[in-house]
Amino acid sequence: MSDSPIPTLSTWVEVPKNSDFTIYNLPFGIFKNKKLSPRIGMAIGDKIVDLSVLDQEGFFANMFLPEGIFIKDSLNELIALGKVQTKKIRERVQSLLLSENEELRDHSARGKVMVTRKEAEMLLPVKIGDYTDFYSSIEHATNVGKMFRDPENALLPNWRHLPVGYHGRASSIVVSGTPIHRPKGQFKDPDMEMPAFGPSRRLDFELELAFITGKQTKLGDSISTEDAEDYIFGFVLFNDWSARDIQAWEYVPLGPFLGKSFGSSISPWVVTLEALEYFRTPNPVQEPEVLPYLKCEKDHNFDINLEVLIQPDGKKPSKVCSSNFKHMYWNVAQQLAHHTSNGCNINVGDMMASGTISGPSDDSLGSMLELSWKGTRAVKLEEGEERKFIEDGDTVIMRGYAERDGVRVGFGEVSSQILPAK
Amino acid sequence: MSDSPIPTLSTWVEVPKNSDFTIYNLPFGIFKNKKLSPRIGMAIGDKIVDLSVLDQEGFFANMFLPEGIFIKDSLNELIALGKVQTKKIRERVQSLLLSENEELRDHSARGKVMVTRKEAEMLLPVKIGDYTDFYSSIEHATNVGKMFRDPENALLPNWRHLPVGYHGRASSIVVSGTPIHRPKGQFKDPDMEMPAFGPSRRLDFELELAFITGKQTKLGDSISTEDAEDYIFGFVLFNDWSARDIQAWEYVPLGPFLGKSFGSSISPWVVTLEALEYFRTPNPVQEPEVLPYLKCEKDHNFDINLEVLIQPDGKKPSKVCSSNFKHMYWNVAQQLAHHTSNGCNINVGDMMASGTISGPSDDSLGSMLELSWKGTRAVKLEEGEERKFIEDGDTVIMRGYAERDGVRVGFGEVSSQILPAK
Repeated sequence: MSDSPIPTLSTWVEVPKNSDFTIYNLPFGIFKNKKLSPRIGMAIGDKIVDLSVLDQEGFFANMFLPEGIFIKDSLNELIALGKVQTKKIRERVQSLLLSENEELRDHSARGKVMVTRKEAEMLLPVKIGDYTDFYSSIEHATNVGKMFRDPENALLPNWRHLPVGYHGRASSIVVSGTPIHRPKGQFKDPDMEMPAFGPSRRLDFELELAFITGKQTKLGDSISTEDAEDYIFGFVLFNDWSARDIQAWEYVPLGPFLGKSFGSSISPWVVTLEALEYFRTPNPVQEPEVLPYLKCEKDHNFDINLEVLIQPDGKKPSKVCSSNFKHMYWNVAQQLAHHTSNGCNINVGDMMASGTISGPSDDSLGSMLELSWKGTRAVKLEEGEERKFIEDGDTVIMRGYAERDGVRVGFGEVSSQILPAK
Repeated sequence: MSDSPIPTLSTWVEVPKNSDFTIYNLPFGIFKNKKLSPRIGMAIGDKIVDLSVLDQEGFFANMFLPEGIFIKDSLNELIALGKVQTKKIRERVQSLLLSENEELRDHSARGKVMVTRKEAEMLLPVKIGDYTDFYSSIEHATNVGKMFRDPENALLPNWRHLPVGYHGRASSIVVSGTPIHRPKGQFKDPDMEMPAFGPSRRLDFELELAFITGKQTKLGDSISTEDAEDYIFGFVLFNDWSARDIQAWEYVPLGPFLGKSFGSSISPWVVTLEALEYFRTPNPVQEPEVLPYLKCEKDHNFDINLEVLIQPDGKKPSKVCSSNFKHMYWNVAQQLAHHTSNGCNINVGDMMASGTISGPSDDSLGSMLELSWKGTRAVKLEEGEERKFIEDGDTVIMRGYAERDGVRVGFGEVSSQILPAK
């Protein structure tokens, strides 16, 4: 798919150069504004297509959609209609926005349908059931292993055999723009006799992408790598905020807990799997060979450019990381096949994040832990600032987009400011 | 409270000797039967009080309850009314069931209100938001440390400083009576060159109790140990099924994942905190002293007898464990204070389990891992059977009750059969 030519589409909507929200994208989200209650929209350029108005005006006639399906405060019910329906809806909107299509372009309701994006408030797009975080970047896992374990044996024995993951906290996942208080917690540095409790001194981001499941399974059933994408609705950017000092003290033997659960931030627009179709990239070679239930016939990696910026309070943002989703060692189909291999059931609206997406170069590391190498080197920012970890007042911005042959499909951003500890 | 005399109450309902469901208990649950759609009831003796019928007949007049609050398939909305309301409802029902109260006893609707328990099907009592599993029994943590780490330093350095816990999978929590398939997964025994995939060979139970939260907090807020019980609605028995071979291979460094998420089983009746009031027992001495945010003024431990039985297919059940909830080193108030100390928000219907409740004696160990000491000794059952781990067809039954001065408040049971791997 990454080689197949992308058909040329043009739209009557004005789409700024370098917009993430082109006619090729059309992500789903939940928005409201001063006049409108929460509802489902699709982003294009600087506008949001209000799907509820399209529906009221009869543009989805003959599609047998449940009444009021777009007047919702989450995408869950829409997603639960199934991929056949959500694909049809997206294709219908795409068709309505094409330059040559006059149906909406010349319709009296056009003004009501096209809402100004900057006047809208974006809400959390899904009611998240269970949230899982993987650890699927070999560069990240290797870096962490080098820092905390043995530089010669950085990867743990299980790492190349299965996509390591853990259950995370769903309640504290918030949408871009929601500020997060610096967490308090217990920590015990190597030079401390006893642990202490207080604000984290090593607050970090983790650059991740997460997928949202679109179809449920029954307890006891498994999903094959071949069928896995049928269960994936779309993707968002995911900032897995981490308090390294809390995490270091608590995580043995049961894994990360309060070092993570004080907040995770996601981008508001869910980019569908269909929109990413032209940006597939070959799966990396996996050595040793994986067990049969983890083998893939098809490419499930995606070429998505990712970047992280830190903006100190009142200053300019500085880019600190340029990475790419294609670096993932374990792909989404393998993650889902592994997750359900024991019969664990999934629901519509579960979220599964990739783990920190680090690349091979020094400027592609997806966390401050790696960028500052455990706080041993400062990362230079604009205006004379520098950081080893995140400080109060800093805003962390993550962006992501795929681009090929001049066609761009992007995520917008997830941006959130760190407030002082309460 | 454990010393204060229990007032004598008698009821016109026939309650069999040794029933868990006395007039002192009155747990909430969701039931249905051939004629009745899912609704909220309270157990007493061999009956269920259909709260929806009580409501229709006006027995809750002047309590300003939302219409249809008892015709629900989960307790969440009822619990969300708050403890003041749910306490009033329970006290009103208790009053209606007293021997001397003729309101319901002599009412024409009595037959419709009192449903036969054995003809009812019990459903999962709550829609579980997030599920957390703690590791709060010092005997269990010590036993595991002795087996897998250093017998001389069995407890990890953090264990006495904080209630270690991890996020678990909520989707696969099922109600008593739901069979569970033996999970498949990856394992790598010490003598294996490479990992293999197949049905778990070391399937285990874990004897736990779990509490259900009844009040939400906002992201960034914390709960003190003093206020913690205001956020606890009630308790259920919890069987945290575990596949030891899958867990052993996957759990480093991010903790238990697929070794747990194939299923957890809970008892259907939620015993309220109020019903356990007379069974408080002193908190254990904690050495070294805990940090201030974990200190407690009040007793938050409860004297609840617990037992586990294994019933091979077609055979008699055998008791393999007698433990007690009072053995917990970390209590529920400390668990909740710790969980929210970083600002992690909780919702109504979150579930927090204790971790395996092992006692100090050999017959009080709450898992086969401990009872068979990692599979090195067989546990004798009735009829010539013996077990090191759980076999296909086995039913595991957990029971729990508090008893003092002839007054009993119990949980009934959580019982589930293991079916062969799919």
